[in-house]
Parts: sequence; structure tokens; C-alpha cells
Amino acid sequence: MEPTHRTRVKRLHERGAYDLATIEAILDEALICHVGFVHEDQPYVIPTIHARLGDNLYLHGSPASRMLRSIRDQPICVTVTLLDGLVLARSHFHSSMNYRSVVALGTGREVTDPEEKMTAFEAVVEHVARGQWDTARRPTEKELKATSIIAMELSEASAKIRTGDPEDDEEDYELEVWAGVIPVTIGFGSPLDDSRLSPGIEPPTHATSYRR
Amino acid sequence: MEPTHRTRVKRLHERGAYDLATIEAILDEALICHVGFVHEDQPYVIPTIHARLGDNLYLHGSPASRMLRSIRDQPICVTVTLLDGLVLARSHFHSSMNYRSVVALGTGREVTDPEEKMTAFEAVVEHVARGQWDTARRPTEKELKATSIIAMELSEASAKIRTGDPEDDEEDYELEVWAGVIPVTIGFGSPLDDSRLSPGIEPPTHATSYRR
Repeated sequence: MEPTHRTRVKRLHERGAYDLATIEAILDEALICHVGFVHEDQPYVIPTIHARLGDNLYLHGSPASRMLRSIRDQPICVTVTLLDGLVLARSHFHSSMNYRSVVALGTGREVTDPEEKMTAFEAVVEHVARGQWDTARRPTEKELKATSIIAMELSEASAKIRTGDPEDDEEDYELEVWAGVIPVTIGFGSPLDDSRLSPGIEPPTHATSYRR
Repeated sequence: MEPTHRTRVKRLHERGAYDLATIEAILDEALICHVGFVHEDQPYVIPTIHARLGDNLYLHGSPASRMLRSIRDQPICVTVTLLDGLVLARSHFHSSMNYRSVVALGTGREVTDPEEKMTAFEAVVEHVARGQWDTARRPTEKELKATSIIAMELSEASAKIRTGDPEDDEEDYELEVWAGVIPVTIGFGSPLDDSRLSPGIEPPTHATSYRR
């Protein structure tokens, strides 16, 4: 993807990445995104669930009327961040984090076509837990109407990635200070049965061996 | 904290929380935040590191000139999200996530006073790894000048929290579908030595037994 003047990573530009495969992999791995929109000159950032289908990002979650109103046909920003490590350098100035993030800009489009809405709903469910769509009850027509899904074309986006060791000033390598990385991971525990679960129903394997 | 018309949680309002202790605890636990700002009518959402000192949120990270310019004396939004679980309901419509989030609105103020800047820098370092400030080399005057720190007064904010089991439609409890929660946690691995670490330097205990 060609970087635009809006998505080109300017500071520490060697961390910028624009190839679609990198951008898509980060979007697909992240469980949630943060959506930015403007309402009455005030920017808002709201966490929500997303899914990618080809060139479309679909957003679901808590479409408070304010968010929905401010996203529909308006400029928005969808950002996902995967935190991979705490980078402790020999100086605080060079301490950092290892991460993979994507910033995607576009215009929100409310999905109204029932077929596209159902497809997007499925994508969101499968994004969170692959295998779940065929396990639980599908949305009724009424539920589909009560669900808000926003699409954004993935046409202007960039990734930013930092990996590896701290990069200290040359003279600081002689300091008697530990430096390195504390790895950060996301962990998934054993599924906890709903307190009203009927006896004899076991969790599906996509829950017991959940991973991304 | 009194909710304003901008921070009151409207949808699923029983999930809203406005007491300062709850808001502060979420801000303090989150490793990163997402900052929203507007530049040429386009909202941007950028991940960065933050710290809270009393009623002030301090933002640090990658102050690209665009971000700094668009945050200084401008309306911004700082959002943090802690993901606690994947909530798999008997219907997709009621599937959800357990989370604790804070949305804070305010105006960015560039910190220029060297003393406040140093205090904020220390807060950010300690926010990421308590004990690290006294371990690594402190910023020089030149490094401090090359660092951008933005303050935002914590005066208009709300938390949103979801915990516990799925809440299915009454008739769905009879379905032969597993329902429950997959717990999500953030994990910290054993510290990885920098490849250029001098022999004999051990990681500090705040790195070997890191937790939040």
C-alpha cells in the first residue's frame, strides 16, 4: 500500500511498514481496535471489536447513537496495537516498547444491506473465536436490525513496528545497568462455565484450546 | 467525578462508572493508552505511554510533529482498555467481552517547565516499570529538551466495565450450546538480556518479577 502524507511514518521512519500483508496480519491478530471519530469538534476514542474481510474493515461493538452518528459518512481512524515487550534501556531516554500497530484512515459507512450485515457479523464472531459461528445461535432478523455495523475501506493505512533490543547511546554501553526486554504476551485461561450452564455441555475445542 | 453529557455512558448505562478511584485504577493498570486528536478535520488515534500523577495525565511516546501540533491546546481524548475475557453467549447477539475502559476528555497542554517535565518523565518510567527510575541513567538536559510530554487534566472522564457471565435471552438457556467466559490476561516473560549486555550484570528484581 502506498503511504500517503497522512499515513507515512515520519518519526523513526525505519519503523514504518506499508505492505498489505503486514498490515492485514496485525489487524487480524488484534482482538480489539480503537476507533477515533469527531463529535462537535471533540475527538473520541472508543474500543470496539473489528474484523477484516478483504479490503473492508468491519466495526461492531457498542454503537452508542453518538458514535454511530459521528462515524457514518464521516472521517474515522481505526487503530490496533499489539504490545510485544517492555524495552528497558540503559538510559530512560532510550527506553521504549516493542509493538506492532496499524493506523487506518477512512470514511465510515453504515452497513444496511442484510446480507452484507450477516456476513460482517459472522466475520466479527469468527475474528474473536474461530469456530464459534457454527456453535452458537445465529442472529434473528430483529437482532440483526438492532446491531450496528460500520464498514471502512482499507485503502489508507500504515503499520509501525518495533522489535528487538534497546538501542543505547554508544557511551552508555559501559554503564553498569541491566538492559533488555521483558516479553509481553496475551494469555487465555481455561474457559469458565456460565453459572447457568446446563449439565453435560462441554466447552468447544476452540474455547478449550483458544489461541490467536 | 460527575458525568457530563459527553462522558455519561448512554448505551448499557449500568456498565458506566464515574467514581474517581475506579477511573484512576484502570488508568494506572493499563500499560498504554490511545490518544485521539484531530488534524485537518481527520481524527487520528495513536498508541502511546501515559502516567497519572494526581489529577494530571501525562502522555509520552512518539510525538511526531503532527501529533504534538494537533494536541497542544487542542481537544483530545485519552482512552485505555483492559481486556479481561471473551464472553461466549448462547447467541451471537449476546456475545461480548469483559473489559474495563476509561475515556477521558480534555485539552492537551505541552509541558515546558523543566521541573514538571522531569517529574512527568519519572512518572512515565515508573508507570511502565516501578523501580526503573533509580536503575537506569536519568535524562540529560538535552534529552529532556528532545522529549515531548503533554499533560491533560483529568476532569471529564468515565469508566465502562463489563464483568461476569453472558446474559442470554431467557429462552436460549435451553439451547444445547456451551456458554461462558475465556479469561484474558496479560503475561510477562523472563527478561531477555540485551545482546550487548556486559557480563555479570543481572536484571533487577522489578524485571525478573515484573507484574502489574
